[in-house]
Amino acid sequence: SASADKIEEEVAAVVEEAKEISDAVSAHISRNLSDEQPLRQRVLALDSKIHSLRSSLYSLLSHKHLNPNLADKLDEDLQRARCILVDGDASSLLPGHAQGRFLRMFLGPINVRASRKDVQLKVKEEYNSYRDRTALLFLLFPAMLLVLRSWIWDGCLPAFPVQVYQAWLLFLYTGLALRENILRVNGSDIRPWWIYHHYIAMLMALVSLTWEIKGQPDCAKTQRGVQLFLQWAMMQGVAMLLQNRYQRQRLYTRIALGKAKRMDVVWGETAGVDGQLWLLCPILFILQGFEAYVGLLLLQTAFVGVISEWQVIFCGILLVLMAIGNFTNTVQILMTKSRF
Amino acid sequence: SASADKIEEEVAAVVEEAKEISDAVSAHISRNLSDEQPLRQRVLALDSKIHSLRSSLYSLLSHKHLNPNLADKLDEDLQRARCILVDGDASSLLPGHAQGRFLRMFLGPINVRASRKDVQLKVKEEYNSYRDRTALLFLLFPAMLLVLRSWIWDGCLPAFPVQVYQAWLLFLYTGLALRENILRVNGSDIRPWWIYHHYIAMLMALVSLTWEIKGQPDCAKTQRGVQLFLQWAMMQGVAMLLQNRYQRQRLYTRIALGKAKRMDVVWGETAGVDGQLWLLCPILFILQGFEAYVGLLLLQTAFVGVISEWQVIFCGILLVLMAIGNFTNTVQILMTKSRF
Ligand SMILES: CC(C)(COP(=O)(O)OP(=O)(O)OC[C@H]1O[C@@H](n2cnc3c(N)ncnc32)[C@H](O)[C@@H]1OP(=O)(O)O)[C@@H](O)C(=O)NCCC(=O)NCCS
Ligand SMILES: CC(C)(COP(=O)(O)OP(=O)(O)OC[C@H]1O[C@@H](n2cnc3c(N)ncnc32)[C@H](O)[C@@H]1OP(=O)(O)O)[C@@H](O)C(=O)NCCC(=O)NCCS
Repeated sequence: SASADKIEEEVAAVVEEAKEISDAVSAHISRNLSDEQPLRQRVLALDSKIHSLRSSLYSLLSHKHLNPNLADKLDEDLQRARCILVDGDASSLLPGHAQGRFLRMFLGPINVRASRKDVQLKVKEEYNSYRDRTALLFLLFPAMLLVLRSWIWDGCLPAFPVQVYQAWLLFLYTGLALRENILRVNGSDIRPWWIYHHYIAMLMALVSLTWEIKGQPDCAKTQRGVQLFLQWAMMQGVAMLLQNRYQRQRLYTRIALGKAKRMDVVWGETAGVDGQLWLLCPILFILQGFEAYVGLLLLQTAFVGVISEWQVIFCGILLVLMAIGNFTNTVQILMTKSRF
Repeated sequence: SASADKIEEEVAAVVEEAKEISDAVSAHISRNLSDEQPLRQRVLALDSKIHSLRSSLYSLLSHKHLNPNLADKLDEDLQRARCILVDGDASSLLPGHAQGRFLRMFLGPINVRASRKDVQLKVKEEYNSYRDRTALLFLLFPAMLLVLRSWIWDGCLPAFPVQVYQAWLLFLYTGLALRENILRVNGSDIRPWWIYHHYIAMLMALVSLTWEIKGQPDCAKTQRGVQLFLQWAMMQGVAMLLQNRYQRQRLYTRIALGKAKRMDVVWGETAGVDGQLWLLCPILFILQGFEAYVGLLLLQTAFVGVISEWQVIFCGILLVLMAIGNFTNTVQILMTKSRF
């Protein structure tokens, strides 16, 4: 019949079209890759050229072949050139940090590198706002537990809400660690320590979940560890809020500069934000001291024999480790920044 | 001096080159996007054309305007056309499943869709081999615990190794859930239930971590729940091994067909693998029955009053829920497959 003939024709046409499109798409993809190749090589060559010019600049300066004012200006120009690469679309062609074991363990071999700079910035902004949202909870959740403890629960924390809180911490730190790994793959210069810090925090949340929360009698003693932990968590919330404020401003300054640079505006306007760093750091040092103090108190309660569970000793050691690591890394960052 | 002039010139050249490259890369990226646009539209149009032809085919057939043999052949042709799209590079232009809440919660707004079909297949293969590796551990880890329990630990499981095992389960299920979500974004037709199933399993592992493991005296009674849980986990390992064997063969058949299709080899060779499904399913049904049985036993121990922790009741309910869901979904899959 006519309709049968017609549909037969149409089906044949569709099969042909499918083959054609499939080939066209394959051709398009390989054409794109081969067009990209020379650009990638130019970007890489320029990047290494910038590095080598920078070291010649320093050696000329140290041999007094160059006027220091001129050297400063040239160094600024080189920094600007590097920023044009790093903060523009070209950054997608620069090799990022390799995708580490942590991401592969959870996600498999999928590529999480964004090819456009605006997507990379969006990821970074979303990370910042995620941290903002959680920092508030970080403050309120343990505060609520501690307040309810003295007002309603008669000085004795019930196990369930504490466990919900610990599970939430585990979830949160896992998310942060995954996101930071993704940022690193997308070219962020985040120090590996801040990521390890979250691995340790994940481990601590996991261990604290298995930590048996004893009730009456004598809560004040047996729950001393949990209580210290909650107090430290509140401190962590304060630290995060302050750090976020600083880091968000830093990002916005960089985005603004990224746009400005194309218009050859003078470089070096991060000074305002860097000033904030000197305000933030004393607070961070105090918090890090408190972190170590809580760790040592945990170890003390364990060794004096009030609580003898291994979880208490383990968390105590981890807290002290984290405090030491945070402190050394903050000092190193300050030293690097003041050198410029 | 001469060297100062030279370096000044070179720095200026580098800044110029950086601007040029940055613009060239931006231009390349937008050119690529605009070249892709018409291809994407053709792919989408063809995809909906295939769907509409398929429904006309069925309506012609039901009105007896078409000879059934011809209809079969045309239907096969349409399936082939669809597979050329889905199993080739063109699939990167078809809309995949949207990236769900779970991925956004853990990873933020990063795109995990692979643009090349061979990468998508690599992700799938890696998922299968990940499951193979873990299925063995799934079998051996609880088996070891149960053997050590009766040989060395005098019928009493110590808390620590069980908690390590539960933490490992939590990690594992999180990884599986993330990977399955990624597969879905990359165009896999995995039923949402199998992913929800892993969310429930994550929750169960988390809850079981807070489950206090009581030692002497009277382990046999107080540890009944843990023991049942371990036995069910071994079963799960067996199910995974069998399922993997089947699913790997299915994938290889599809890859082989994907290559064959371009050479117009006759369609419909999955019959061999589909036969295996009828062998696999009775075993799956037995395992699902056992899953429900373990869940009910847990509920019983809780209600008879041997163990009164909420964790036992909760895990019991979750196990029964999972058994029901697994059963209904397996039956639905069998019904869909036998209709062809
Ligand atoms: C000290 C500190 C303020 C310095 O921040 P900074 O000036 O941004 O440091 P850097 O210049 O080295 O930053 C390099 C990159 O790492 C990121 N980064 C720095 N510290 C980070 C942290 N703790 N977490 C996540 N990312 C961080 C920056 O955003 C930047 O990213 P980018 O390359 O994508 O722009 C910051 O590291 C910090 O607050 N650390 C936490 C301190 C702490 O001890 N907290 C716990 C107390 S209880
Ligand atoms: C029943 C079963 C064998 C059917 O498998 P199937 O024939 O591949 O099913 P479908 O045709 O619906 O598969 C569609 C897609 O989902 C995937 N898929 C199916 N079941 C899956 C599962 N349980 N986990 C992960 N992916 C699964 C398939 O690989 C396929 O992917 P693709 O589109 O990328 O090729 C399978 O679902 C299964 O083994 N389920 C688990 C049964 C169970 O109850 N286990 C626990 C017992 S204690």
